Amino acid sequence: MERLLSVAHEVIGRCHALAEFTEEPGHITRTFLSPPMRGVHAQVRQWMEAAGMSVRVDAAGNIRGVYAGQTSARLLIGSHLDTVPHAGAFDGILGVILGITLVESLGGRRLPFQIEVIGFSEEEGVKFGVPFIGSRAVIGDLDPALIERISPAIADFGLDPAQLAEARLDSDALGYLEFHIEQGPVLENLDCAVAVVEAIAGQSRFEIAFRGDANHAATPMLSRRDALAAAAEWISAVEREALAAEGLLATVGSIEVEPGAANVIAGVARASLDVRHGDDAIRAAAAGRLLGCAQTIAARRGVTVASKRHLDRPAVRMDAALVSPLERAVARAGHPVHRMTSGAGHDAMILAPIVPAAMLFVRSPGGVSHHPAETVLPEDVTAALQAGMSFLEELEARHA
Amino acid sequence: MERLLSVAHEVIGRCHALAEFTEEPGHITRTFLSPPMRGVHAQVRQWMEAAGMSVRVDAAGNIRGVYAGQTSARLLIGSHLDTVPHAGAFDGILGVILGITLVESLGGRRLPFQIEVIGFSEEEGVKFGVPFIGSRAVIGDLDPALIERISPAIADFGLDPAQLAEARLDSDALGYLEFHIEQGPVLENLDCAVAVVEAIAGQSRFEIAFRGDANHAATPMLSRRDALAAAAEWISAVEREALAAEGLLATVGSIEVEPGAANVIAGVARASLDVRHGDDAIRAAAAGRLLGCAQTIAARRGVTVASKRHLDRPAVRMDAALVSPLERAVARAGHPVHRMTSGAGHDAMILAPIVPAAMLFVRSPGGVSHHPAETVLPEDVTAALQAGMSFLEELEARHA
Repeated sequence: MERLLSVAHEVIGRCHALAEFTEEPGHITRTFLSPPMRGVHAQVRQWMEAAGMSVRVDAAGNIRGVYAGQTSARLLIGSHLDTVPHAGAFDGILGVILGITLVESLGGRRLPFQIEVIGFSEEEGVKFGVPFIGSRAVIGDLDPALIERISPAIADFGLDPAQLAEARLDSDALGYLEFHIEQGPVLENLDCAVAVVEAIAGQSRFEIAFRGDANHAATPMLSRRDALAAAAEWISAVEREALAAEGLLATVGSIEVEPGAANVIAGVARASLDVRHGDDAIRAAAAGRLLGCAQTIAARRGVTVASKRHLDRPAVRMDAALVSPLERAVARAGHPVHRMTSGAGHDAMILAPIVPAAMLFVRSPGGVSHHPAETVLPEDVTAALQAGMSFLEELEARHA
Repeated sequence: MERLLSVAHEVIGRCHALAEFTEEPGHITRTFLSPPMRGVHAQVRQWMEAAGMSVRVDAAGNIRGVYAGQTSARLLIGSHLDTVPHAGAFDGILGVILGITLVESLGGRRLPFQIEVIGFSEEEGVKFGVPFIGSRAVIGDLDPALIERISPAIADFGLDPAQLAEARLDSDALGYLEFHIEQGPVLENLDCAVAVVEAIAGQSRFEIAFRGDANHAATPMLSRRDALAAAAEWISAVEREALAAEGLLATVGSIEVEPGAANVIAGVARASLDVRHGDDAIRAAAAGRLLGCAQTIAARRGVTVASKRHLDRPAVRMDAALVSPLERAVARAGHPVHRMTSGAGHDAMILAPIVPAAMLFVRSPGGVSHHPAETVLPEDVTAALQAGMSFLEELEARHA
């Protein structure tokens, strides 16, 4: 246990070391195939090779280390190495380092399956506005238009876009395991180190535009058709609906008004709406209610409203064949077993249709993520390591 | 009456003729001392001289025509010739043309006072973000810093900034009369052609910044500190307060959020607040309540709020010595006498501390202004002309 805590400190140190590879000095910013990703690959390759893995970087820029086993069956462990602008050191990175560290913990011992640790090149969607490019390449889900868009970046990095097909999984994968920080305060509020993810929430995204009359701020209150007042009333209704429904997340994160002058009533207010839930039917019903609510508010105010759907992604359940052993591993490691739905999307969601997938969340102190203040506790990293080692032992016994 | 209606049509025609002088073909945009203002001056000078006035353009770019009288006392009639971007043809312009037309209606007859018609060069504040430059020059209220900022534009137009002091009123003015479109729907709702302005509302302007936590849209609803949700609740409260108080106008016309992404809870929401009322005490109390309300909402949500005051302009009462004869003139012209407070600022507000001032509003069909669809009805222009002529007759009798 003492020893594991010192390993946990080393895991955290490695995350900080990779944070030095950045596009902006003083910040952590590392987008898809940006120059600092070369340094990350060199460092990760060194750790992987030292752990006895054979390493390649596929044409999508994913770094992949394979630790040989007694059969061709393969367990995947991974997460992503890219970041949002001005990120923290752990989102994504921690999962890759934990994968390498679990292989190191085997001390050269062979299991009845191979382990492939994958550091995905792209999950955040910063560079092309399209997330999950790394994991989509691994399941062969990149469409020709997207391949055409990303090919110059691939070639610039010194990779060959013509070889993208070889990024696809080429052996019988028995599962995919992803460690990731929670990116929320649930575990902190529960005082839990880790949680087993049951499902990744489905997500709908809309743009809602209220249109009234841009008029002088001298216009009497009763003669106004104020697009921002309508939007404000609706934003409050969105929040109320979400608070009233178990597990529903609804966010208006952006709003823009026209003309946007202090002395002119807003003629147009354009807002985003993001709706998430682990149950697709509940999410669809909630999105319908929220759009209906915008219509009702607009009609009462003599304002019009139009909505456009930008995203409709179904919920993805994690696979019981991996979730159950992961839960048992958490329990054997001496930690309470908390199950939760992930509100955020992850690479595990992309792999789940192809490979049985499971995720373990690690507490985010303060619920902070996508921010320089993002951190993890050494004790929680220890818990994740214990659970991971115990999970490998159960799989070893099952496949023996 | 038939004849007056045809004069009204000519007034409207002249407004349209001046609209041809614009910085942007296809739109009406004419800012302070922009090139098209030369064409406006040439045309206005021609009309003024034809009406028997001696004309000069002062160093602030105001065009001023003096119609000689039997004494050195002088009645000022004016409004502005600049426009907002993509304006209509009447805001400001109509008041200048009506002044010229009233002088024409005298047919060369001399009154016991002079009439000076002023076409102010700048009222909208578009070019330098500072409104009322034309009328402020006339009362000698341009500060040195502003003079330094505007001097290059004055020189470029071919005027001499060193002569700005000569723009000041140089004779005993017995009053200032301004005709202006209402810029609101009040007269249309009352089915009135014109209104006598009693006062110009005071105005407070603030910037209010709510600060919460920018966090992932996967954050549980109860763990959020959403700056936009706080701002939205407050915007609704602002509207409710204003609807509940007679004559109070409160507008949130601009809002900006950070980071402003669909999948990130707003960490900062920065909104404007514009508060207007004819009574300064009522306005100050309302502004205090609205800022207090922001504090209450923020505190309940664990969000902070900070406000900055950008403007605090007292209400300006029009002068009874002119308002009463103007009301009698409207009544003699056969129109209902409606009194109102102007929510918008006007040049009359700038002159009022120096010269007894009065304003006559002309109905804005649809309440539309600062927009290409801005218009006036010939019947309403006739009513304004009748009232103006009758007003001159009463002043003539009083000063005989």
